[in-house]
Amino acid sequence: MSIAVLCGGVGAARLLRGLVPLVPGPELTAIVNVGDDTELHGLHISPDLDTIVYTLAGAVSVERGWGLEGETWQAMAMVGHYGGVDWFSLGDRDLGTHLFRTHRLGQGASLQEVSAEIARAWGLTLTMLPVTNDRLRTLVTTVDEGEIPFQEYFVRRHHDVAVTAVRFEGADAARPAPGVLDALDQAERILVAPSNPVVSIDPVLAVPGITDRLRARRDDVIAVSPIVGGRALKGPADRLLVELGREASAVAVAEWYRDVVGTLVIDDVDADLAPAIEHHGVRCIVAPTIMSDPARTAALAQVLLSAIR
Amino acid sequence: MSIAVLCGGVGAARLLRGLVPLVPGPELTAIVNVGDDTELHGLHISPDLDTIVYTLAGAVSVERGWGLEGETWQAMAMVGHYGGVDWFSLGDRDLGTHLFRTHRLGQGASLQEVSAEIARAWGLTLTMLPVTNDRLRTLVTTVDEGEIPFQEYFVRRHHDVAVTAVRFEGADAARPAPGVLDALDQAERILVAPSNPVVSIDPVLAVPGITDRLRARRDDVIAVSPIVGGRALKGPADRLLVELGREASAVAVAEWYRDVVGTLVIDDVDADLAPAIEHHGVRCIVAPTIMSDPARTAALAQVLLSAIR
Repeated sequence: MSIAVLCGGVGAARLLRGLVPLVPGPELTAIVNVGDDTELHGLHISPDLDTIVYTLAGAVSVERGWGLEGETWQAMAMVGHYGGVDWFSLGDRDLGTHLFRTHRLGQGASLQEVSAEIARAWGLTLTMLPVTNDRLRTLVTTVDEGEIPFQEYFVRRHHDVAVTAVRFEGADAARPAPGVLDALDQAERILVAPSNPVVSIDPVLAVPGITDRLRARRDDVIAVSPIVGGRALKGPADRLLVELGREASAVAVAEWYRDVVGTLVIDDVDADLAPAIEHHGVRCIVAPTIMSDPARTAALAQVLLSAIR
Repeated sequence: MSIAVLCGGVGAARLLRGLVPLVPGPELTAIVNVGDDTELHGLHISPDLDTIVYTLAGAVSVERGWGLEGETWQAMAMVGHYGGVDWFSLGDRDLGTHLFRTHRLGQGASLQEVSAEIARAWGLTLTMLPVTNDRLRTLVTTVDEGEIPFQEYFVRRHHDVAVTAVRFEGADAARPAPGVLDALDQAERILVAPSNPVVSIDPVLAVPGITDRLRARRDDVIAVSPIVGGRALKGPADRLLVELGREASAVAVAEWYRDVVGTLVIDDVDADLAPAIEHHGVRCIVAPTIMSDPARTAALAQVLLSAIR
């Protein structure tokens, strides 16, 4: 049973952690958002790719949900000493990942090649593909500062500012990374992780070719709603949906994805929304979706695999 | 009494540390080699500028003589985990300096501006000028690998390989950083630190305009020999002089510098070389030159200031 998973960061990483024990490495392909990537201090930073690797390696900080366990912050303290840009916290261990990635990219390696090298170093066996090796950047239009890069919105502003539009710079010219379209064609089922539809999954869908493939395979595409009980489990998905004229609900998620997703898994607490979701032509599965511990994560992965089989 | 000092790394840093208590900040200008600079992992690294700052700030590692006290190595351990390039050790605290420098250069600041910001953050009051803001790189021709960048020779090969030539890439097109020529014109005396003549001071002299200025002021230029008792106090100056057809002695240093240096300070142990040095038309001062502790460093600085006055 081969599976491809469209991924953002934390939510996707947790879902993958549930799938890894159940799906053999060669059968599992993560197709990962790079719209969050940023160049900072001369380094290429890929937050979603790293969150997935660190999580699957069991090295992620449990407390923060991102970055590495056992992290220290000496480099950033020094940047602060100089009055430099220190709102984007880079731990010392994490910096090693960015140094390696930047060095390899400078040598001409693709983001995909470097990502595979990093995943391999952590002992991971799944295939982890950035959706594109080309430059794709999520830009967010805020009411008070105009259009700003995603990380300025997400980290510097703590996603605590009203947004009027989201744009994926470079998406039109971006080519799917080698292997991405094949994985979407060949996977028996395609999952959409409970990531932010607006700023994590949409940049993946914005790469030419991806949406067409999903549309063609809509019946085989299963998404997990990142909105539970009207709220995002993490991050600004709820707020963004409202600011962009939708509502913060699993129904809005179904509507958002309806062209490319045949089935939406929603949480038990939202069971009464199933009819409205089906009304949008999206099949609905009701299950516990909150991956708050390994057992629940494993249970959700089982639900998804059962839905597939 | 205004003084300009041509500087490499460790030897120059120690000499400056002796001078700082004796010469008011506004009267002291360090003109620093950038031929050792390197781009690694996407970061701009300026070893000589940093060694001077860290030393003058009292933050340098006493044990290593370079880098920062209280340093940790988490980032490099991670680079090693990935099989990356880890022969050039960058401490976590030190990385903060490179992150800040690289970020500011990326914003369009000159190396000189960034260096001043870094020096100011450490409370330094001297004027510290990279000899040029342009790209100048020392390249070393080795017998077994051909021409390699300086840090590959110095760090990766532990300067333990025979050298047949040294070249300063970019020197012809490099312009002295703003303030450098003025400092050389206006300083009452010009010192040449006991740095490596071949790979630390020569790249400074290679920047168009510098050598002419020194020649014109030769009588006011005082160098301290980095060769004591036929050996370099640190690094490969002795070996390089021999490999390039000279001898490892203070006499060879006098000969190397004779066009631009009017006076050479040599160590007591080399007192018998004074006549041979004077024979090259270089005035000779004999004094204890080994800056092995603060008292000896202060004493050498006093000797230099007395020689000047």
